[in-house]
Amino acid sequence: MNRCAELVSTGSELLDGRRLNTHAQLIGTELARLGIRLTRDTTVPDGMDAMRDAIRSALSRAPLVFVTGGLGPTTDDVTREVIAELAGRRIVMDDATLRQNNAWLRQRNRQPNESFDRHALVVEGAAVLSNSAGLSPGERIDIDGRTVILLPGPPHELRAIWTEHVGPWLRTACAGELPLCRSFRFCGVGESDIALRLERAGFSGDGLEVAYCARPGNVEVRLLAPAQDRTRLDAAADLIRGEFAGDIFSETDGPELLLEEVVGGLLRGRRLTVATAESCTGGLISHRLTNVPGSSDYVRGGVAAYANEAKIALLGVDGETLAREGAVSEAVARQMAEGARRAFGADVAVSTTGIAGPGGATPGKPVGLVFIAVADAAGTICRELRASGGREYIKNWTSQVALDLLRRRLTGLA
Amino acid sequence: MNRCAELVSTGSELLDGRRLNTHAQLIGTELARLGIRLTRDTTVPDGMDAMRDAIRSALSRAPLVFVTGGLGPTTDDVTREVIAELAGRRIVMDDATLRQNNAWLRQRNRQPNESFDRHALVVEGAAVLSNSAGLSPGERIDIDGRTVILLPGPPHELRAIWTEHVGPWLRTACAGELPLCRSFRFCGVGESDIALRLERAGFSGDGLEVAYCARPGNVEVRLLAPAQDRTRLDAAADLIRGEFAGDIFSETDGPELLLEEVVGGLLRGRRLTVATAESCTGGLISHRLTNVPGSSDYVRGGVAAYANEAKIALLGVDGETLAREGAVSEAVARQMAEGARRAFGADVAVSTTGIAGPGGATPGKPVGLVFIAVADAAGTICRELRASGGREYIKNWTSQVALDLLRRRLTGLA
Repeated sequence: MNRCAELVSTGSELLDGRRLNTHAQLIGTELARLGIRLTRDTTVPDGMDAMRDAIRSALSRAPLVFVTGGLGPTTDDVTREVIAELAGRRIVMDDATLRQNNAWLRQRNRQPNESFDRHALVVEGAAVLSNSAGLSPGERIDIDGRTVILLPGPPHELRAIWTEHVGPWLRTACAGELPLCRSFRFCGVGESDIALRLERAGFSGDGLEVAYCARPGNVEVRLLAPAQDRTRLDAAADLIRGEFAGDIFSETDGPELLLEEVVGGLLRGRRLTVATAESCTGGLISHRLTNVPGSSDYVRGGVAAYANEAKIALLGVDGETLAREGAVSEAVARQMAEGARRAFGADVAVSTTGIAGPGGATPGKPVGLVFIAVADAAGTICRELRASGGREYIKNWTSQVALDLLRRRLTGLA
Repeated sequence: MNRCAELVSTGSELLDGRRLNTHAQLIGTELARLGIRLTRDTTVPDGMDAMRDAIRSALSRAPLVFVTGGLGPTTDDVTREVIAELAGRRIVMDDATLRQNNAWLRQRNRQPNESFDRHALVVEGAAVLSNSAGLSPGERIDIDGRTVILLPGPPHELRAIWTEHVGPWLRTACAGELPLCRSFRFCGVGESDIALRLERAGFSGDGLEVAYCARPGNVEVRLLAPAQDRTRLDAAADLIRGEFAGDIFSETDGPELLLEEVVGGLLRGRRLTVATAESCTGGLISHRLTNVPGSSDYVRGGVAAYANEAKIALLGVDGETLAREGAVSEAVARQMAEGARRAFGADVAVSTTGIAGPGGATPGKPVGLVFIAVADAAGTICRELRASGGREYIKNWTSQVALDLLRRRLTGLA
């Protein structure tokens, strides 16, 4: 297989601002791991002319073309028609899909109708990729020695079909040519610091593909090497690990782990429970921790204590400390974490108090000043963060640093 | 001005999964408001060949082409070179930008250098669009009667240049031709129900452009009309309002309001405070409420009560009720809302308890079953929701329905 692919994303809603196009990131990530380069994403509105033009152009450049969207039952869903025309084939009803979709209807006590049946239409001769998360299946079609893969637009459906069908098929098709991939995620050190320290430590990246990506509190360094260069990749990974050790929250050659998944794994492995006490993050840390399936095993709960009265009543923060030091202070952060640990009967608790802005700054306490504390049986630690950016950016950054402080405490690093 | 435009997004990081491309949504939204249709977004990696090909194709179809990214100082930033070549012009140093950037350096006690100076390179004869949020300016260049607008890749820089230069220029260029735009957002009614009921009520959409967008608990209907058709737009808006009234949480001809902003505005206007008690949403409602600047004026706080013990201890839920009805029950949802209202001394409180999955289902209580309650001085109301989808999808959907129930209660609808 020639190792490049193109994507054609279809849907007027992707071009008039109604919907964010996440297809390129999802598909680009998965392809990169397989050593396949996504060389273009062409987003076009609903309508046969633009779609035909974009797909034909993509097929002229790449041996593998993904087309997303336009597989639904309405009249503006014309992806099948365009592909059938390009392939010179008919559109037919797929009986297996029809049966599956009718069962779905019966479960919901709804009647089949003609519009609904259209979900089950496919291009004749296509490999039908069943959709466990929705009604329109994906399709894989060969056109003149090139492969077109049709996927539904809703991201969770696209992901389900990718996981169950497209990924396994590509791994087989790429057999023996899969590159080696290693990805590191850092918290607590910036992108340019990482690059500089790696250079000083003698890291050259020779023979490897090295890609950086910086986000607040989350820098990714991704290494790719040809299958036969495992030694080179391992040496580079050893060097990175040796230089940064505790700043790396995730090292993987598979799907990325989110920091909340890493923390969840640590809590589960150590049979510890956790609680949160959030002021400036307003519930975001608790939201992130509980996004992880199975988190009810170790998350006891949390308090979003916005009002000072709530800090006092629910978390036992001392009113005098609040009055003397102010809500945004190390002393209050410590008391909040200790209070949450007590209130929820948790083994460990994390707290945040800060100024997310745009208002709320006072002399000596600018927007972005945050105190983060972690309390456990051994005591309480606190970190000061000076974040910048807009309100949601500061909330995100703070939640990342707080989860990382929790990770460091759980692994004996802080 | 011919009313269509294309976008060419450049950057390898947009195609290998490292970064999500938000340019099309940002630019598409702004253009839609001006009645300009974004007809294609072509995303290509860094490199002159792909970029030249994509920009040349775009110029062959559209009179206005936006190119994002590749304006930085590094060797893979080649957008200027491609445009200079296509326009048959030289690249020159822009003195005003150089002075501004050097002042930026001096403020930070850093030395100018050759690489840094490259930020100030522009295509000869371009209108330079100064960048108040970064170092690389935008540029506007005419090529054979068509207009190319170059914008930096970082979204906050792109947005700054759009607000200060591109938007005003487009409004002048479109003078007198600006369409009328009206957008409605619904919660509590599905996309197909909206379409059906509007049809039955005699809504034809004749002479209007009507666009739907469905998200969980948030359907958008957007109307566009030519400037001279205000009467027609108003009549359509009256019909929609008359048919759906309380299901509409936002009607606007300007930037969209999020449901948490609408709820925040209602709380502020009525001088009421709010508290949350979240089980299955795990802090998401509290996070959303506190994303709104100034929300500390009306948000007292919240409890994410994952463990039953926390429901009892912090929210005063009755242990016997928990044992008899289970945590996912109407009785517990009601007691949680009432408990949060009491614990935080808030005027109104909202609660959620449900099964976000993928585990946790029991006979009679499937994944997606959620109870949502709102308590205020007048009493407590409760709604049952049967959501579907993955864990985060169910959390999002639930938070939307919960905020909407709060909105309905505050406006006397529930």
